[in-house]
Amino acid sequence: MGLTIGVDIGGTKIAAGVVDEAGTILETHTVATPSTPDGITDAICAAVGNAAEDHTVDAVGIGAAGYVDDKRATVIFAPNIDWRHEPLKDKVEQRVGLPVVVENDANAAAWGEYRFGAGKGHEDVICITLGTGLGGGIIIGNKLRRGRFGVAAEFGHIRVVPDGLLCGCGSQGCWEQYASGRALVRYARQRAAATPESAGILLGLGDGTPEGIQGRHVSAAARQGDPVAVDSFRELARWAGAGLADLASLFDPSAFIVGGGVSDEGELVLGPIRKSFRRWLIGAQWRPHAQVLAAQLGNRAGLVGAADLARQG
Amino acid sequence: MGLTIGVDIGGTKIAAGVVDEAGTILETHTVATPSTPDGITDAICAAVGNAAEDHTVDAVGIGAAGYVDDKRATVIFAPNIDWRHEPLKDKVEQRVGLPVVVENDANAAAWGEYRFGAGKGHEDVICITLGTGLGGGIIIGNKLRRGRFGVAAEFGHIRVVPDGLLCGCGSQGCWEQYASGRALVRYARQRAAATPESAGILLGLGDGTPEGIQGRHVSAAARQGDPVAVDSFRELARWAGAGLADLASLFDPSAFIVGGGVSDEGELVLGPIRKSFRRWLIGAQWRPHAQVLAAQLGNRAGLVGAADLARQG
Amino acid sequence: MGLTIGVDIGGTKIAAGVVDEAGTILETHTVATPSTPDGITDAICAAVGNAAEDHTVDAVGIGAAGYVDDKRATVIFAPNIDWRHEPLKDKVEQRVGLPVVVENDANAAAWGEYRFGAGKGHEDVICITLGTGLGGGIIIGNKLRRGRFGVAAEFGHIRVVPDGLLCGCGSQGCWEQYASGRALVRYARQRAAATPESAGILLGLGDGTPEGIQGRHVSAAARQGDPVAVDSFRELARWAGAGLADLASLFDPSAFIVGGGVSDEGELVLGPIRKSFRRWLIGAQWRPHAQVLAAQLGNRAGLVGAADLARQG
Amino acid sequence: MGLTIGVDIGGTKIAAGVVDEAGTILETHTVATPSTPDGITDAICAAVGNAAEDHTVDAVGIGAAGYVDDKRATVIFAPNIDWRHEPLKDKVEQRVGLPVVVENDANAAAWGEYRFGAGKGHEDVICITLGTGLGGGIIIGNKLRRGRFGVAAEFGHIRVVPDGLLCGCGSQGCWEQYASGRALVRYARQRAAATPESAGILLGLGDGTPEGIQGRHVSAAARQGDPVAVDSFRELARWAGAGLADLASLFDPSAFIVGGGVSDEGELVLGPIRKSFRRWLIGAQWRPHAQVLAAQLGNRAGLVGAADLARQG
Repeated sequence: MGLTIGVDIGGTKIAAGVVDEAGTILETHTVATPSTPDGITDAICAAVGNAAEDHTVDAVGIGAAGYVDDKRATVIFAPNIDWRHEPLKDKVEQRVGLPVVVENDANAAAWGEYRFGAGKGHEDVICITLGTGLGGGIIIGNKLRRGRFGVAAEFGHIRVVPDGLLCGCGSQGCWEQYASGRALVRYARQRAAATPESAGILLGLGDGTPEGIQGRHVSAAARQGDPVAVDSFRELARWAGAGLADLASLFDPSAFIVGGGVSDEGELVLGPIRKSFRRWLIGAQWRPHAQVLAAQLGNRAGLVGAADLARQG
Repeated sequence: MGLTIGVDIGGTKIAAGVVDEAGTILETHTVATPSTPDGITDAICAAVGNAAEDHTVDAVGIGAAGYVDDKRATVIFAPNIDWRHEPLKDKVEQRVGLPVVVENDANAAAWGEYRFGAGKGHEDVICITLGTGLGGGIIIGNKLRRGRFGVAAEFGHIRVVPDGLLCGCGSQGCWEQYASGRALVRYARQRAAATPESAGILLGLGDGTPEGIQGRHVSAAARQGDPVAVDSFRELARWAGAGLADLASLFDPSAFIVGGGVSDEGELVLGPIRKSFRRWLIGAQWRPHAQVLAAQLGNRAGLVGAADLARQG
Repeated sequence: MGLTIGVDIGGTKIAAGVVDEAGTILETHTVATPSTPDGITDAICAAVGNAAEDHTVDAVGIGAAGYVDDKRATVIFAPNIDWRHEPLKDKVEQRVGLPVVVENDANAAAWGEYRFGAGKGHEDVICITLGTGLGGGIIIGNKLRRGRFGVAAEFGHIRVVPDGLLCGCGSQGCWEQYASGRALVRYARQRAAATPESAGILLGLGDGTPEGIQGRHVSAAARQGDPVAVDSFRELARWAGAGLADLASLFDPSAFIVGGGVSDEGELVLGPIRKSFRRWLIGAQWRPHAQVLAAQLGNRAGLVGAADLARQG
Repeated sequence: MGLTIGVDIGGTKIAAGVVDEAGTILETHTVATPSTPDGITDAICAAVGNAAEDHTVDAVGIGAAGYVDDKRATVIFAPNIDWRHEPLKDKVEQRVGLPVVVENDANAAAWGEYRFGAGKGHEDVICITLGTGLGGGIIIGNKLRRGRFGVAAEFGHIRVVPDGLLCGCGSQGCWEQYASGRALVRYARQRAAATPESAGILLGLGDGTPEGIQGRHVSAAARQGDPVAVDSFRELARWAGAGLADLASLFDPSAFIVGGGVSDEGELVLGPIRKSFRRWLIGAQWRPHAQVLAAQLGNRAGLVGAADLARQG
């Protein structure tokens, strides 16, 4: 099989890219994300149609946030789009005339990193994506593991604090409430409110108030050594690393790959994550340690991974 | 391949059984467990030798507590025996002249249940064993998943309470401190000490003191409706079920199998575990629910599973 | 000193009552609560003026939610009214021509119960009020203990769960997030969503959805034996009782008084609170146990207490 | 009243000191602590007798670990001595012919600091003692507050982590498991085991193993900048400061005094405690903040405080 198309459905834009067997994106078409479910389906088809014009493509892979069924055909539930049991595969196949594979977007990104990024050469890899929330994917024995019903690898919602913070999922104490971009901002706001004298740089980057602090301010302030910003990253890393240690107890992979916007800060966040991971790894003195690697594909991982999953059929 | 031998290394005795392709144990030989590492190796060989006398067997599978390497040959670390990087496969093969597979005992038990017990017909199964501690095994795509280095499925040591109870592993807040036979006894003792007037049956079964309460007393008292004993099982079930919900978020199996001595109480403990599982299952209204099943093989699971793994090679 | 006036500032109405030395309310005047800070001050003066028309009164006591300074004159901060360093005592004194004492409303209610309700005869009493939130007051050596700066007894905001639920105060894991009317509703909604089949009565009392459940539904359903409602009260009681055990370690009072809307359910909630209190009381076998008593004055406690504090001067 | 004697019962020695009205110790007599309950009573009387030889003294104050009744006469329960309902006051009075006051040792130390140390000039003071465990005392309105039954101020046993570490008291998650000398050593050992390469100084001070680390090693290593030692103090300070914030919500004192062996490190530990206190203080922007002060009397506080309590009668 030659070229395939990967589709990434974002909150502001939908991107369809033509991808070759080496994971290279030959060209990309983007459209603004419509506000209605049907509009989004239309937009996906339009983007795919445009991408397919200049190339001969064999299949389409779509990465979608939410639960995707075990047939990789239906979006059972999407958190941000009003899709409930949406037969996305059938709808798009009918319109674009190509075989379609639908995949959870974090799974697609994990596959992208495994095939063409930080995971190359590993057979057993766990990817986590520290974006606004926390997602991820599981590769065991060179295969993406989706679970019996398609909804495995919902890492963000394992409970790490009993009776902990409320989560959008309805539960409490979910990992993504403590290790995600949203958590990072909360840490920074709480600390800046409590000790503003240690948050001069951070507060200066926003509107001067704790509430005005955004994720990009925390990153920029941390690079400049702002104590509150650095401490906020460290807190996030404590939770991220402890969670990876749990995943090591469960999956024992040879590598973890950490992606998502938060990981763009590189060693600023990966160093503390590795330290926390070692701190909490059970049996650390007896077992080989999994590597904790930075993702390499950035926000292309999902599109490239979806395209490759479509190629694999 | 025809008959194989499975070996189960217990704290008081070592059992070697001849097992056929259907998982039936044809005969079993047991010896008392010696106190020295070398003595245990000797005893394993002796038990295997006895078992092999009356049958033609093709291979031997040994289930051992602890970390077993990815080649299923070496016990890297055992919690109860002073084995460190013990080349058990080589030693036993040289002595008994049969191919040997070494496997973590909880993995072996999981495989036994998957092949011949409650897991028959499922492709993706997670087993947990509620014994003194909490162990388990992972079957995905009809294969036992051991991790890259052989030490996956250490369920008992995922952290469910930050800054929680000290665990023998050196960490804190491990699941097995809250969901295991040992936890059950702790719950019962604490409650009996605080409200002895609600623990009349329970205290009457032991020596009358909270410290004298043993696991079997809790089971017997719960069957007689002792409020403290029933409440102790319920507390254990709260933690067990919540942990299964986490495992569902991660693995999305079609079934969980709950084994180990605690599960011998059947619905007394499985009912509350199922209830807690549903309570904490993320996305419960959107996804198919994994079944929570009682193990069927009892304490034969490890021996039968080890024998079958040896058959598979 | 003879008669005094007590003022209770509620969310919907402001009540001023003429109270005698025995704590009896002779008459009450109420006005709707205005929406502006100045309007509320006006309304307080009006209500006091009306109450003072038919009786000779010597002083006025005002119970206000929020921080009241150590001079009992200024509302430093109020959570529901836009008062910041509001000199309420001076303003009202000037307008009504009577000596005024301002007191935190939960402190006033605690004093009321201590003087004329469940606390009569005790020298050392801790009151907690389980209303929408959780407040309380401290009586040691027959005196209300307000702290050096007037802001003691903020029971609702001690941290009972590290990294726990967000609280309106900006912190996390505050006791009132786990033991209050608001917590009760959250427990009921979560449980009804997870196991609707056990919440038939409860859901039937509202609009049929978990989100439609209100506090009064939980109370009514619990009285009818609805499992989810009963379990929700039990969960609240677990946290309330454990917190009382902490307060016993700190204050060692002879009695706890439990008031507020939640306590209107009587033994339905007090029984489980007592049980949890005993469960967590440190050194229970060695020490005399504080009584856990139901408040007796209902929502009159604050008004009566404020009037009496004014009498004491 | 002129001179009085204060008695401090330690694990290795019993000290009796003659103390004047200014809190100055004129002379001290010590004897080795006997191993039997009666032997200890004998030793107390002997030490008091010796101390009374050269001075005219009016009364004796004895500080004892454990629960002391509201009459300050009987040791209800002692954790380290086999005293149960021991009538210590009567026994010693009969033997030494002087009025005796028995007081909990942490209460006595708190009183000493309030009268002659860091608490001078404050009316409302909370003292915490970070020794092997965590104790303390409450002064409100210039009086020591002992609770109705004599067992108030058991700060070490408020629950700060639900389902947390087991405590010697039989409960779980007690504050002293997270903020005490014992906790400090645990933090250091855990961290040194996980990241020995960051604990070179610390490990070098002991026998080279994590288990060999003692409290004095952590202090010495922290002063030399050992990362693990510094981090261990910071962890202790996080819990200590958060607990002080809770005590501020409850008691609202003008000052906290931090004593005990851990506080000997001065700003190394007090600085982080203050930072954590501010981080968790509720309503920090609206209220006056209590000072967090270092104790001044060191291990003399208990003896001096007991002597002064005897003087007050």
